[in-house]
Amino acid sequence: MEIRTLIEHARGQAPADLLLANARVVDVLGGEIVPADVAVYGSRIVGLGAYEAAERVDLGGAYLAPGFIDAHVHIESAMVPPGEFARAVAPCGTTTVITDPHEIANVLGLDGIRYMFESAKYGPLSMYVMLSACVPASSMATSGAVLRWYDLSSLKSDPWVLGLAEVMNVPGVIATDDEVLDKLRSFAGGAIDGHAPRLGGRELQAYVAAGIQSDHECTTAEEAREKLRLGMTIFIREGSVARNLAALLPLITPANHHRMCFCTDDRQPSDLMDHGHIDGMVRAAIAGGLEPMTAIRLATWNTASHFRLWDRGAVTPGRRADLVVFDDLEAPRPRLVLRGGTVVARDGEMVLPPRGSAPRQLRSTMNVAWDKVDFRIPAAGRRARVIGVRAGELSTDCLIEEPARRGGEAVADPSRDLLKIAVIERHLASGGIGKGFVSGIGLVRGALASSVAHDHHNLVVVGADDESMETAARRVGALHGGWVVAEGARVVAEVPLPIAGLMSGAPLPAVRRAVDAADQAAARLGARLPSPFMAISFLGLEVIPSLKLTDKGLVDVERFEIVPLWAS
Amino acid sequence: MEIRTLIEHARGQAPADLLLANARVVDVLGGEIVPADVAVYGSRIVGLGAYEAAERVDLGGAYLAPGFIDAHVHIESAMVPPGEFARAVAPCGTTTVITDPHEIANVLGLDGIRYMFESAKYGPLSMYVMLSACVPASSMATSGAVLRWYDLSSLKSDPWVLGLAEVMNVPGVIATDDEVLDKLRSFAGGAIDGHAPRLGGRELQAYVAAGIQSDHECTTAEEAREKLRLGMTIFIREGSVARNLAALLPLITPANHHRMCFCTDDRQPSDLMDHGHIDGMVRAAIAGGLEPMTAIRLATWNTASHFRLWDRGAVTPGRRADLVVFDDLEAPRPRLVLRGGTVVARDGEMVLPPRGSAPRQLRSTMNVAWDKVDFRIPAAGRRARVIGVRAGELSTDCLIEEPARRGGEAVADPSRDLLKIAVIERHLASGGIGKGFVSGIGLVRGALASSVAHDHHNLVVVGADDESMETAARRVGALHGGWVVAEGARVVAEVPLPIAGLMSGAPLPAVRRAVDAADQAAARLGARLPSPFMAISFLGLEVIPSLKLTDKGLVDVERFEIVPLWAS
Repeated sequence: MEIRTLIEHARGQAPADLLLANARVVDVLGGEIVPADVAVYGSRIVGLGAYEAAERVDLGGAYLAPGFIDAHVHIESAMVPPGEFARAVAPCGTTTVITDPHEIANVLGLDGIRYMFESAKYGPLSMYVMLSACVPASSMATSGAVLRWYDLSSLKSDPWVLGLAEVMNVPGVIATDDEVLDKLRSFAGGAIDGHAPRLGGRELQAYVAAGIQSDHECTTAEEAREKLRLGMTIFIREGSVARNLAALLPLITPANHHRMCFCTDDRQPSDLMDHGHIDGMVRAAIAGGLEPMTAIRLATWNTASHFRLWDRGAVTPGRRADLVVFDDLEAPRPRLVLRGGTVVARDGEMVLPPRGSAPRQLRSTMNVAWDKVDFRIPAAGRRARVIGVRAGELSTDCLIEEPARRGGEAVADPSRDLLKIAVIERHLASGGIGKGFVSGIGLVRGALASSVAHDHHNLVVVGADDESMETAARRVGALHGGWVVAEGARVVAEVPLPIAGLMSGAPLPAVRRAVDAADQAAARLGARLPSPFMAISFLGLEVIPSLKLTDKGLVDVERFEIVPLWAS
Repeated sequence: MEIRTLIEHARGQAPADLLLANARVVDVLGGEIVPADVAVYGSRIVGLGAYEAAERVDLGGAYLAPGFIDAHVHIESAMVPPGEFARAVAPCGTTTVITDPHEIANVLGLDGIRYMFESAKYGPLSMYVMLSACVPASSMATSGAVLRWYDLSSLKSDPWVLGLAEVMNVPGVIATDDEVLDKLRSFAGGAIDGHAPRLGGRELQAYVAAGIQSDHECTTAEEAREKLRLGMTIFIREGSVARNLAALLPLITPANHHRMCFCTDDRQPSDLMDHGHIDGMVRAAIAGGLEPMTAIRLATWNTASHFRLWDRGAVTPGRRADLVVFDDLEAPRPRLVLRGGTVVARDGEMVLPPRGSAPRQLRSTMNVAWDKVDFRIPAAGRRARVIGVRAGELSTDCLIEEPARRGGEAVADPSRDLLKIAVIERHLASGGIGKGFVSGIGLVRGALASSVAHDHHNLVVVGADDESMETAARRVGALHGGWVVAEGARVVAEVPLPIAGLMSGAPLPAVRRAVDAADQAAARLGARLPSPFMAISFLGLEVIPSLKLTDKGLVDVERFEIVPLWAS
């Protein structure tokens, strides 16, 4: 806003648009609760105190805090694009998110990132982007895109781009890999997020010395303390899978709280709908004993300050009128949410009409050479390397089993929980396919297929028989991406995810219903895990131990190389 | 430093230059004291822990903290240029100063600012510049330069320029003066310092809404609390004249300490030599009850963070090795100071050799039309407006007195403490001279003249007779600027300040001796104030009430206009 306009309205020479009267302002800078009226003009807060305004809303002593900020989130995990994600989290009081469009970038590269921008635009949320640093995660899988430093640099001057997203290639940093260093150099001086689970000692020192400023992978207070001491901002994460709030809460003290933020990283639709977003973290932190003022700071100013978003994060003149209103300081539940001076949500419901403009055109991303897809596995050995799924973990075991045989083929044996798994390359239509066996899913019949398979997002299929696998896989293709449960020739359940094979075009509640139905259908076929599609989506992630499968074959993650299916 | 080099040394693949062993690291981020060895390579800290190093210095359990930072200082007040100033404050542990070269800018404009850069370069101090926002202070005096927004913008991209210095023209901001707004617009998004003594309410809201981010003029905790609440960072000042630490100390709490910094603003040579610099503020704050960790944060990280100097302010890998070592956490007195990995001071003494390079050429700034200088005041009225000096204050009273007469002239009357005062224009040689009377200095004979006269720095002369005034004034001219005490035709004492008429080329101790001698000489002539030159240097400052004198005449500051000498 023009400085002159701000000054004139702050002086009270011209009436404000809106006066939020009788507020108890949560002053996250001074650390006090301040009774005041707050005047808003256009998108900005113009003053605290008595002001003339076109509209006066009496808050009746309710608390008024800055809008909440998520320090690190992959929106794709919510299975809806930013526009719809915003409609889910804005009623929770979130007004700004710092995103890493890592999933869609692995499928569509810069086009995917631009799609995310487009979808967020004119929506009820400020969506900033940290540019995905590791696309692809390795050369042992085929991804839909490769983002080099010069690709990322091309977006660097975009006002919505803040820096370089989580630098997951920790070995690359420490070994001074040229490609990684080029990216670090390109964003030196700006924000660079880290991702360094369990890293400590000299290797952590090297990682920090490289200019990496944050970490959201701490699972213990001790790990976080070391990182804090070395200068990292700690993003405390509470995702659908990884939940670190309880473990890190004891770390937060008056002496260090200003170096910590809240983030969600990855949240499934059901979690967003049942537990909210950053507001849920604030409530959980307070319930866990954190002082409310401190919890709200982690959700607002600390993140704004870390990312140098000087126009938000506090209720002061000149800053954006991104505001939440709630009644209970011990359990903040936003009943009114404003973004840039506009009421976007009331009592947990969006009040803005849906976006009018058409979404950006996006090409279909299911490029599979179906004529080359063959699920048969020749019985070329006796003892096979088998992926052992651990319930609730992303890590797997490398088991050695003797698969059943039929004719010259090695086949699934549901009675021993030995299913077949395939990862079909779906970006280049190269015909690439990795095949193997998996234990721990528990299907007794049928198959599951998904175009969500971190990070390359090829088509992963797990099944008790080849026909079900083929039905499921081909149906995913026909849907332009999604989750499918099939039995024989029949499709039993499906979640269409036509946006890059990752996201739905439907509203979040509908996506959640479809997800629940698919999980239940899988359970009826014998799947034992609560979220079998989530589980299989990580069986292709070749950077998390121990044994994974990509379109190029089985990956021994410790050795970081492709290994044969047959051990002997 | 190249990222690869940092990583390799942080990993320990190559030996460090220096290991500061057995340190107790003051971790200003986590708020803890951490026993550790600290490795330095080149200008950077590369790691905390066991490292190989070319040189090992055992600190024997001493404290190791980041170098101190002064958030706001006019170096000219020390009467020596940055190179010499650095040699005075670096032994005190100061490694970075944020300066406003306001005084020299009023004399020499951009040339003056460039001189300050040049003088600081290769010295033992990082000197950043905030660009002087109000040159000249008003149109009621003739200054040596006018800095418009486009002049300031020309230096904006200099890596040592951080933003716009204290915006003293508070009425201009609030009245949306075009010139002021142009400067604010030009630096919007960067750092903009404030200067808003006693401003509150809506006017303060307008000032903050304009994008002004700090204030160093708070004299009470209540004033500071309001500014803090509205989003300003509070620079707590402890200068030679204005001392606010004691008043503001009670404001600092664990909840708000991260929004406050230390600064000195203006310090005379004797204060720097006797009380140190930021280290003295740290000791005084601790003695006043502030927790040492908090005091050190205000002196380091808080300021680095406010000014977005991400490469300093904490002892972490990758940051500059700007470090201080001291033994007593309750009264930190640096015994070793490193800047960028180089030891610059030990046990209170500089260890670096003096700078080799020649100083930048600077023209003489005493441009006086001596043939037009005439101290006589025709007795054109009976009752005159007289400047009433208040001891220890910058404000004056507007007195009405009847001066003595001799012939057709109004003359000084030392028996009633009514001296003559003149301000001679010394930039354009225009012949401009303002004349009047002053009470409260106390000379019984002789005269004082000074080329330091805030902010325009014209030549101010106060005396008991015209001959002494002429002698003193002409001697200042011959010295190319300075302070002079004269009696009749004789120069009694002098402090040459040939650098813009503001600073000496001599070492600080020599300047201090000359200053003391001049003050004593003035006292022998009857001057009653402890620092008579300091007092007369503010008698020309036409923006501080009530009655002041410039080369254009007497200024009624409340009415903000030139008024006649004779009231009747």
